[in-house]
Amino acid sequence: MSGPVALGGPVVALSGGVGGAKLAHGLMRQLPGGALTVIVNTGDDFEHLGLHIAPDLDSVVYALSGLADPVKGWGRDDESWNFMAALKQLGGEDWFALGDRDLAMHVERSGRLARGATLSAVTARFCAALNIAARVLPMSDDPVRTRLETSEGTLEFQDYFVHRQCQPVVRAVEFVGAGAARPQPEALAALQRPDLRAVVICPSNPFVSVEPILAVPGLRAAIEATPAPVIAVTPIIGGKAVKGPAAKMLRELGLEVSGETVARRYAGLIDGFVLDITDPPPEPIAGVALRRAATLMQTVGDRDGLARAVLEFADGLR
Amino acid sequence: MSGPVALGGPVVALSGGVGGAKLAHGLMRQLPGGALTVIVNTGDDFEHLGLHIAPDLDSVVYALSGLADPVKGWGRDDESWNFMAALKQLGGEDWFALGDRDLAMHVERSGRLARGATLSAVTARFCAALNIAARVLPMSDDPVRTRLETSEGTLEFQDYFVHRQCQPVVRAVEFVGAGAARPQPEALAALQRPDLRAVVICPSNPFVSVEPILAVPGLRAAIEATPAPVIAVTPIIGGKAVKGPAAKMLRELGLEVSGETVARRYAGLIDGFVLDITDPPPEPIAGVALRRAATLMQTVGDRDGLARAVLEFADGLR
Repeated sequence: MSGPVALGGPVVALSGGVGGAKLAHGLMRQLPGGALTVIVNTGDDFEHLGLHIAPDLDSVVYALSGLADPVKGWGRDDESWNFMAALKQLGGEDWFALGDRDLAMHVERSGRLARGATLSAVTARFCAALNIAARVLPMSDDPVRTRLETSEGTLEFQDYFVHRQCQPVVRAVEFVGAGAARPQPEALAALQRPDLRAVVICPSNPFVSVEPILAVPGLRAAIEATPAPVIAVTPIIGGKAVKGPAAKMLRELGLEVSGETVARRYAGLIDGFVLDITDPPPEPIAGVALRRAATLMQTVGDRDGLARAVLEFADGLR
Repeated sequence: MSGPVALGGPVVALSGGVGGAKLAHGLMRQLPGGALTVIVNTGDDFEHLGLHIAPDLDSVVYALSGLADPVKGWGRDDESWNFMAALKQLGGEDWFALGDRDLAMHVERSGRLARGATLSAVTARFCAALNIAARVLPMSDDPVRTRLETSEGTLEFQDYFVHRQCQPVVRAVEFVGAGAARPQPEALAALQRPDLRAVVICPSNPFVSVEPILAVPGLRAAIEATPAPVIAVTPIIGGKAVKGPAAKMLRELGLEVSGETVARRYAGLIDGFVLDITDPPPEPIAGVALRRAATLMQTVGDRDGLARAVLEFADGLR
C-alpha cells in the first residue's frame, strides 16, 4: 500500500543525516504534497576548501529527490571521483570525499551564500530544482557548530566523524553558537501551527543530530508547547546503531546502548517512542507511549512502512 | 633534435592562454630546468560561482605539466563533466564549462586565496605538485580585469569571450585596475636580470593577452630596458588567428589582419618578430628584425621546433 493516508494536517520531522533522511522520505511519500516540513541539523556543517558543506541537509535533499546513493548511504548515486583525484594530484586536502556531482551542491551553495543568500533560500532553490514535495529547512540560518570534548582534545565534528573516523572517546558535546542562533522562521512557524498533525523525531543520533536542533532557542519550547503528538524513532536496534557513532557515544557517556535509553533521554519532550520490532518489550516510561515497529530501512518499502506506523501511532495518541 | 641548447642564461616568456602556453612548453623543453619564467596574463581571470578562475594561468600550467587536452586546446585531458550536469540540474549557471578534474584547480586556488595566499603562491604550489620545471607567475597578484567596449555595451572579458562567444564588435579594450596593480616581484626581477638570454612574447592575442601584461606598471619598462633580445611570435597565420578572436578584433579595430600588423604594434618594444613560414616575406619594419618560421603548433615536435627557432633568432640578435 502507498499514497497519502486519510488524516490531514501538516507534519514536522526533525532529522540528521542518513537514517533521518530515509524516514523523512517515507513520510513525504505518505503525505499530500507540501504537508511535510523537515527541520535539519546544521551542527555538522563546516567550511572545507573554502566551500560550505552541509552534510545533513544534503543527505535529506538527496534522499527526498531520489538522488541518494542507495549503497553508501551518503552522497549521490551514480557518482564519479575525478575531482578528488585531481585535488590529490595538486596536493589538496583529500580526507573528506567530495564526488563530482555532489560538488555541484557545495559550489552552488557556497557561491550563493557568499553573495548574501541565506542557507534556507539556497536549500529552497535546490528543493524546487529537484521537484521535492516537502519543505527542507536548516534549523537556523545562523552558524551552530557541534564540537566534541574527546580523549584527543576538542574536535570539530567532521574532524572527529570523518577525519578520525569516530575513533576518539567522546566525553561531552557542545553546540557552539547555538545560544545566539535564531530558529529558522518557517521551522518555528511550522511547529507552532494549531493544525499540526505530528512532530516526528527521526532515527538520528540524539547527541549530534537531534540535540543540536533542540539547542536552537525556541525550537524545543515550540515542540514542548504543541498539542500535536511528538513521536521519536529509535536509532538503536539490538544494541547497535544502524549507522554512525550513536552506540559508541552512548557507551562512552556511560549509558546503556538501547532504544530505551534514547527514549528516556527524550522524556518530557515526546509523547511516544518507536522501538525496533526485534528488541524486547521495554519497561514502561512515565509519560511516553511505547510502540514497536520495523525500524530498519533497507528498501523504499521499509521507509513507507515505518512512516505509516509512525503516523498511525501519532494519530492514535491525539 | 631535443634537449637544452648550448647558450645559457634565463629566458622570460609572456603568455596568454593556449597558443602562448604551447610555445612556453616548447621553450621549457629546450632549456635547463628552472631557466624559464613564464609571466602570464590574469586580465581574463574572473569570479564565477564564487570561485577564482584564472584561464590563462591554468592553460599554461596544464600545457607545462602535460595535462592539457590536446584536442580542445583548453582544460584538461581525460576530463569528465558530471559536476556541470549536476550544476545544471540544480539550476546553476552553466555557460562556463568546468570539468570535474579542472575544478580541483579552481576550488583549491579559491580556498587558498580566501585564506590569504597570493595567486603567485598558489600557482607555485601547483607547479611544484605537478613537477613543472619552469616558474609560472601571474603578471600581478593584484586584480586586473580586461573589459571590452563593444557593440553590445561594456562587457567583462569572459562574458564576451565565452558567454557571447566573441560575437559583439569590439571598439576598445581597457584593463581595469592595471594602473594600481603591482608587478609580481619575481616577474619584474626576472626581466631585470643582467644575464637574461631573451624575452619571448608568445603567439597570444596582443589586445587581450599580451597588452594586459604590458599594462602592469614596471613590466613594459623592464622589457624596454633589458639588453637581452626581445622576440615576439605572430599569433596570425595566413590572415587568420590560430585560435580565439585576434583576427576578428584586428578587423574590428580597422587594422589589417596580418602578422605584420602585430609586429608594428610591438615596434619599440621588440627586437625581432617571427612570422609564419607560409606568409609572404614582409616589408621591413624599422628596428625590428624579421624571421619566418613554422609557427603552427599541432604536435609537441612543432613546439620544440618553434622554441628552438625563437631562441636561435634571439641569440643571433645579441
